[in-house]
Amino acid sequence: MVDIAARVWNHKWKIDPIVRSLIDTDFYKLLMCQSVFRNRSDTRVTFSLINRTKDVRLAELVDEGELREQLDHIRSLSLSRGESTWLRGNTFYGKRQMFRPDFMEWFEGLRLPPYELEKKDGQFELTFEGAWPEVMMWEIPALAVLMELRSRAVLKDLGKFELQVLYARAMTRTWEKVERLRAIDALKLADFGTRRRHSFLWQDWCVQALQEGLGQAFIGTSNCLIAKNRDLEAIGTNAHELPMVYSALADSDEELAQAPYKVLADWHEEHDGNLRIILPDTYGTVQFLKNAPDWLAGWTGIRIDSGDPAEGAETAIAWWKARGEDPRRKLIIFSDGLDVEKIVELHDRFAGRARVSFGWGTMLTNDFRGLVPGDGLAPFSLVCKAVSANGRPTVKLSDNPRKAMGPEDEIARYKRVFGVGAQDEIEVVV
Amino acid sequence: MVDIAARVWNHKWKIDPIVRSLIDTDFYKLLMCQSVFRNRSDTRVTFSLINRTKDVRLAELVDEGELREQLDHIRSLSLSRGESTWLRGNTFYGKRQMFRPDFMEWFEGLRLPPYELEKKDGQFELTFEGAWPEVMMWEIPALAVLMELRSRAVLKDLGKFELQVLYARAMTRTWEKVERLRAIDALKLADFGTRRRHSFLWQDWCVQALQEGLGQAFIGTSNCLIAKNRDLEAIGTNAHELPMVYSALADSDEELAQAPYKVLADWHEEHDGNLRIILPDTYGTVQFLKNAPDWLAGWTGIRIDSGDPAEGAETAIAWWKARGEDPRRKLIIFSDGLDVEKIVELHDRFAGRARVSFGWGTMLTNDFRGLVPGDGLAPFSLVCKAVSANGRPTVKLSDNPRKAMGPEDEIARYKRVFGVGAQDEIEVVV
Repeated sequence: MVDIAARVWNHKWKIDPIVRSLIDTDFYKLLMCQSVFRNRSDTRVTFSLINRTKDVRLAELVDEGELREQLDHIRSLSLSRGESTWLRGNTFYGKRQMFRPDFMEWFEGLRLPPYELEKKDGQFELTFEGAWPEVMMWEIPALAVLMELRSRAVLKDLGKFELQVLYARAMTRTWEKVERLRAIDALKLADFGTRRRHSFLWQDWCVQALQEGLGQAFIGTSNCLIAKNRDLEAIGTNAHELPMVYSALADSDEELAQAPYKVLADWHEEHDGNLRIILPDTYGTVQFLKNAPDWLAGWTGIRIDSGDPAEGAETAIAWWKARGEDPRRKLIIFSDGLDVEKIVELHDRFAGRARVSFGWGTMLTNDFRGLVPGDGLAPFSLVCKAVSANGRPTVKLSDNPRKAMGPEDEIARYKRVFGVGAQDEIEVVV
Repeated sequence: MVDIAARVWNHKWKIDPIVRSLIDTDFYKLLMCQSVFRNRSDTRVTFSLINRTKDVRLAELVDEGELREQLDHIRSLSLSRGESTWLRGNTFYGKRQMFRPDFMEWFEGLRLPPYELEKKDGQFELTFEGAWPEVMMWEIPALAVLMELRSRAVLKDLGKFELQVLYARAMTRTWEKVERLRAIDALKLADFGTRRRHSFLWQDWCVQALQEGLGQAFIGTSNCLIAKNRDLEAIGTNAHELPMVYSALADSDEELAQAPYKVLADWHEEHDGNLRIILPDTYGTVQFLKNAPDWLAGWTGIRIDSGDPAEGAETAIAWWKARGEDPRRKLIIFSDGLDVEKIVELHDRFAGRARVSFGWGTMLTNDFRGLVPGDGLAPFSLVCKAVSANGRPTVKLSDNPRKAMGPEDEIARYKRVFGVGAQDEIEVVV
């Protein structure tokens, strides 16, 4: 039976919107937004899109008009009543009323602020300026829109059967990964793939595949909309954005050295249990842990997001031991550049020595490598970062110099202040 | 949007019928049926199901009650008005009114005759007895029902995503074959996969894949229903059934020796052009051609359906030359055990030396090899053959002794009458 109404409805679309909800975003953005709303709501920030994969010439692939339509559509979104009810009433990380009434009221009134868009050297220069709590909510939808517009640009010349077979191949590949992961005893794995997803529908499919294929080993998704729709746990804690902005706001080297700990002190006040996860690599993991206050060693776990992940985990375990903590009761979350091989390897090495879980991103929701001629659907490294705060540039070092960002002199200053020496370069694929 | 009506409709089904139309059958059955209706309508025949792959224990896999329901459903079918209009009004092989009014009237009144079903040694003994034109119409639906019930039996324990991935894999595999075939210059290929198909919907998908992927190289399908629905050429000429029954009816060795030629003399009277295709292997190709009357060398082409196909084609080319015919104007149709490798190989060898086309069957519509544990969906060799005519057993020798059938003493007699010596054994996979 042809569903005439559905078909007519589809023909009525002026555009096919990619992001259709303000909660089609990562859960940690909401947690951080609430924290920023409470502690730093008057900070002015600039976020910029940065394509680290220069040979993907986005502005030549994607029509500027289409991009504007998608971004304008996002600016028209506001929280729906059902979304608000879910955020207000749902239990997150075992806690009721995670989001306070004053924050929810603000969020219900939120419309995303304007964007600036230009083309340069085959890339889009897309920036967002304004109050931190508002601007920060652009990050994930901006990335998702660009990733999916790029997919659509590559897919638009394929025939009906080529499309069907393309997705058949991608499904087969994903399911083979699920089957390998299923063999891992006591695996804990979450979807972290919103920002780099091939498309919304594809992320949703991947999440369902993990639900059916992994059962209890699949602990949830970072995507709030999918978590809500599929009755899953929303997963996430905090990100580099917080220490980067706090650090940019520091008025002296002494304040700068303390800024990353100040972030976690604010967090400590607000959250407990599994939300107390250290993200140590913004300005180098080793020095960060060495200089950390003792109360931080009492936190539940650590997230390893750059550098060699096994080395990062060993550093954390040694640090906990040095501070008199039992690593076996600590949680290590791996979230950088994961695919099945790496997950298996890390699980084998650390299971039993600590509690281990995985935030699987790009290679879950965007592994279309090799599926079209010229590899035009291969994932690439697109980020959207806070580049300045109250007029001062931000800096990120991380445990991989290729992920460093900020003005050169500021990078040098941060390296000095945080005592970061030579670092191993690691190729950034995604 | 959920299509509530479709969902309620689906829940109302008592069974999900596999064969839903009397023209969900091979085109050559209709051509042969008309010939039989005209020339031998009072012949009484018995058709039997024969599973040449003994280790597929059909009666242990497939529920007898379900099989009866499916067969009973087929007995309830009659030609619809649209089907009748299509058969009466359509052009087949460039000819209008291929089916004569008296045949069409008979066909419009046709209901398939009763069946006999028993279980023995893990197999079904399924037989059909009655007037030849009626009984012969059971062959294809009986095979299609058993093939698809076997698929369903194996699929019934798979989860939703396992099913989706299974078909994703099968689609990927089929499309890879299409991509390889697309590279062949001036390919001519038809779907001959009805009888061994994984399922009706799968055959229909494969046909559409060939339509989109091969374009003009895809010349049509043997399945009348799909040809009608998809506006394709219906393809097919005649089969072993005719010489087998004609031979069984022969009253002497001399008559027997002439029977296969008598079949083609009747055909010659009725058809011309691309329908004049010799099927020479029923009692051995070499002797058949050697003893053939000269008018047969004037026919358009030959179908190679057993034995080594290259050898069969060389035999035909040599025979045409010996009879003063130009092989480059002749058509060689390969239709036995084809897959992409074999198609490429035969095309490379014979293109230019003759007109070449391919009737691709089982490995088009049922290549699910290796896709479930235990290989439970691998195709197998199921046939439904005329085993007797007017109380006398039929015999088939073919160019591969493993495909021979009939009582031993009769096989020996036929070998003597047709002068068939030693033959190479070739494994029968499908």
